[in-house]
Amino acid sequence: MAAPTLAVVGATGSVGTVMLELLSSRRNVWGEIRLIASASSAGRELTCRGESLVVRELTPEAFDGVDVAMFDVPDEVSLEWAPVAVARGAVVVDNSAAYRMEPDVPLVVPEVNQEVLEHRPRGIVSNANCTTMAMIMAIAPLHREYGLRELVLASYQAVSGAGQIGVDVLHDQLSKVAGDRALGSRPGNVRQAVGDDLGPFPAPLALNVVPWSGDLAQWGWSSEELKMRNESRKILGLPDLKVSATCVRVPVVTGHSIAVHAVFAAELDADGARDVLRHAPGVIVVDDPEAGEFPMPIDAVGTDPSWVGRIRRAIDDPRALDLFVTGDNMRKGAALNTVQIAELLAADL
Amino acid sequence: MAAPTLAVVGATGSVGTVMLELLSSRRNVWGEIRLIASASSAGRELTCRGESLVVRELTPEAFDGVDVAMFDVPDEVSLEWAPVAVARGAVVVDNSAAYRMEPDVPLVVPEVNQEVLEHRPRGIVSNANCTTMAMIMAIAPLHREYGLRELVLASYQAVSGAGQIGVDVLHDQLSKVAGDRALGSRPGNVRQAVGDDLGPFPAPLALNVVPWSGDLAQWGWSSEELKMRNESRKILGLPDLKVSATCVRVPVVTGHSIAVHAVFAAELDADGARDVLRHAPGVIVVDDPEAGEFPMPIDAVGTDPSWVGRIRRAIDDPRALDLFVTGDNMRKGAALNTVQIAELLAADL
Repeated sequence: MAAPTLAVVGATGSVGTVMLELLSSRRNVWGEIRLIASASSAGRELTCRGESLVVRELTPEAFDGVDVAMFDVPDEVSLEWAPVAVARGAVVVDNSAAYRMEPDVPLVVPEVNQEVLEHRPRGIVSNANCTTMAMIMAIAPLHREYGLRELVLASYQAVSGAGQIGVDVLHDQLSKVAGDRALGSRPGNVRQAVGDDLGPFPAPLALNVVPWSGDLAQWGWSSEELKMRNESRKILGLPDLKVSATCVRVPVVTGHSIAVHAVFAAELDADGARDVLRHAPGVIVVDDPEAGEFPMPIDAVGTDPSWVGRIRRAIDDPRALDLFVTGDNMRKGAALNTVQIAELLAADL
Repeated sequence: MAAPTLAVVGATGSVGTVMLELLSSRRNVWGEIRLIASASSAGRELTCRGESLVVRELTPEAFDGVDVAMFDVPDEVSLEWAPVAVARGAVVVDNSAAYRMEPDVPLVVPEVNQEVLEHRPRGIVSNANCTTMAMIMAIAPLHREYGLRELVLASYQAVSGAGQIGVDVLHDQLSKVAGDRALGSRPGNVRQAVGDDLGPFPAPLALNVVPWSGDLAQWGWSSEELKMRNESRKILGLPDLKVSATCVRVPVVTGHSIAVHAVFAAELDADGARDVLRHAPGVIVVDDPEAGEFPMPIDAVGTDPSWVGRIRRAIDDPRALDLFVTGDNMRKGAALNTVQIAELLAADL
């Protein structure tokens, strides 16, 4: 059989850019790779696997002959175009939130629930939210061992989760505040220095943390917080899992971190949990505080695994574990997991 | 009776500086204010209440005639000198961790447990840790209403908690990373740009979060995390309270934030909790996400109250509440609470 054809929809975006890097560096399973984007980006030339490729416009015909199509586009674009790609014969791996909670669309993290990939009646497979992804890589192997009952989560999310505009806005703000040592010590002076250009964020990120990510969903919860709850339940197959998440944006370029408090059915200890995590795929244990070793964005950026550390049994609950996880939100949190799913689909064609 | 004499020990430090600002702006209850510091700082002139004062060296005689002495010095200095001040007739209000967990030293947050101030057999009163303080201001009134059972905490701590050196190091690091848009998107390049000057921190803070604060205590827990547990139990008078805390340093100058998941004995709802907090002393409710209103360091810095928002009942537990708190770690978290205690003592002399 000829090597399969892959389409990358949203190829010029920041996640698309990482997808092309990954396709250039991983073991190649693809024949043609076709880059697709909106009309305004069509015609641009991008490099993938050492070849220069011209970006095609998103049209129904662009999917003719495509076996697998990876989408990284806004929800509404996925809603419109994923069915078009499927109608033209492609299997779609979608990184938007549009289909994740649909009961007939599998939500896949290959290291965790690869088996659900087989049942995809709509021809669409969803990729999990970037914050959920980093955390679930560490929690899934612990769940298998100890039986997960409850998660309390607090996130430290990077600006690249909001796209290249988020990165640009943070760097612009940092240039404005750098060099003035009085900033951040007096009320209002950071807002004044940063000015009105907040980009996609509701407040300045420089010298600040912003306890908000996504849109207002319901009962005061943000959409990002509900994603962490609902996607964790679906991926782990635990419809009654108790989850509380607080999502917070921090002045970090790339690398989402999560402080995790996980309650299990069985008693456990930190050494046992550390051992489980050391043998888990896609996880690296970095847990020696005295040596300054804990998971941090500046180390995890550009790497594939979820970095896990600060592994402690709760002092007041022998069934609970506290830990800290950092993962590259552009790679495993978005591009890498999508590419992994696409590769699994390619092997099964 | 003559107005009482106040000593400020550690007057030249960053918390001492805020103490002098507060003493200059609050209703004056003091006669003489005496500034005391180590020999290396003695002789410096500082302004308080519009007067220029010469800093005296820390000696036993410096406490003669002092009614109340506020200490902001390292633990070991408090251990040595607080008893000296007491022996010379002063009541000591100590902001170090040296005495906080001693059973015969009251640990006081005036809005929460003012009554314990009366029993101080050693003549020493302790001030709570800055991270605990911001959080406890919001949790204590909720505890009175609903009966607190458990806390899961994740902190977002500012660099000024590590003193002026922390602020200087962050600003230096920001100057080094500002203007280079590639930083933070590739592995290792932030460490390279920042260089070796990490100051009091185990890793760079610019474009990073560091899941560590304090020293290694036991079982993998940091001293700061144990303080949040043990001091919360003591202040609230709940020796069996379940507490898990993960303490994380973020690139913020001043303003400690805490994501709080609190479980109570009674069922509650967000509106009721919000109402309790609106009537709580030392608390300001900032909770309108659609209008971009939530507690943030750049707004809370330089103010007295704990800012509380993102108040949500847990979706999966009607007895649990999730919220986000930010407080100025230099003011209520250190100088302000110490000054408040000193003023209560002055009124009772």
